[in-house]
Amino acid sequence: MPAVNVKTPYLTVDGIINVQNEKGEFEGIVLIERKYPPAGLALPGGFVNYGETVEEALIREMKEETGLDVVILKQFHVYSDPHRDPRQHTVSVVFECVARGKPKGADDAKKAFIVPYDRIPFDSMVFDHGKILKDYIDKKYQR
Amino acid sequence: MPAVNVKTPYLTVDGIINVQNEKGEFEGIVLIERKYPPAGLALPGGFVNYGETVEEALIREMKEETGLDVVILKQFHVYSDPHRDPRQHTVSVVFECVARGKPKGADDAKKAFIVPYDRIPFDSMVFDHGKILKDYIDKKYQR
Repeated sequence: MPAVNVKTPYLTVDGIINVQNEKGEFEGIVLIERKYPPAGLALPGGFVNYGETVEEALIREMKEETGLDVVILKQFHVYSDPHRDPRQHTVSVVFECVARGKPKGADDAKKAFIVPYDRIPFDSMVFDHGKILKDYIDKKYQR
Repeated sequence: MPAVNVKTPYLTVDGIINVQNEKGEFEGIVLIERKYPPAGLALPGGFVNYGETVEEALIREMKEETGLDVVILKQFHVYSDPHRDPRQHTVSVVFECVARGKPKGADDAKKAFIVPYDRIPFDSMVFDHGKILKDYIDKKYQR
């Protein structure tokens, strides 16, 4: 079982960032507008580097794409459908996290902004990110 | 961001299989004795194939190594320390699952057997599997 001959899916992380305002109220979730194809709205995220934990990758990517210093609350779920990304098979570890501050798009994100919980555009997001957020909101409110 | 130039960790799955006997009692967890180095006791598991979901990989690997048809209850946790496997950086999605029947070692498993919950050899397992099972038992009994 020599590992060097094994091809496994590409590993990524995505973050569901709940942003709290100065009043201590959670305002919504951070979405980004992607700079590169496929164009559209997405959760911030990216590839896990070889030699990096998934937690390190999540904190790094959130900082790069949104400028936010996130606090990880928990691993939410792993999404691994081979067709979830049209370019190649990526498996994403999705995290629930919190942050304070105003997101600012950078790196792979043209823009980054907060969307209130009741205005999440589930059906106009790229990849399976609409489904991920639907799963998250369903679980959060036990719908 | 061309994915083909990206090197991410190898992706694996491991299963915590709770085996139920004919009386409906859970007898313990399935461990294997590894056929290949590093030698020792481990959870059954293996690499995720490119094009396969983590759930498909888990069900396939459990069947190959233990002969059991497992039912997945939930994703337990993702373990990604770069040094958890001395050979290369592997990230494992660990599942909690259940099964009925007698495990039988095959493929990468020299042997497969049930260990009662109060006799799990945490300190003599390979990789980080002792820690994984400790986390699992701690959570199960909220210790």
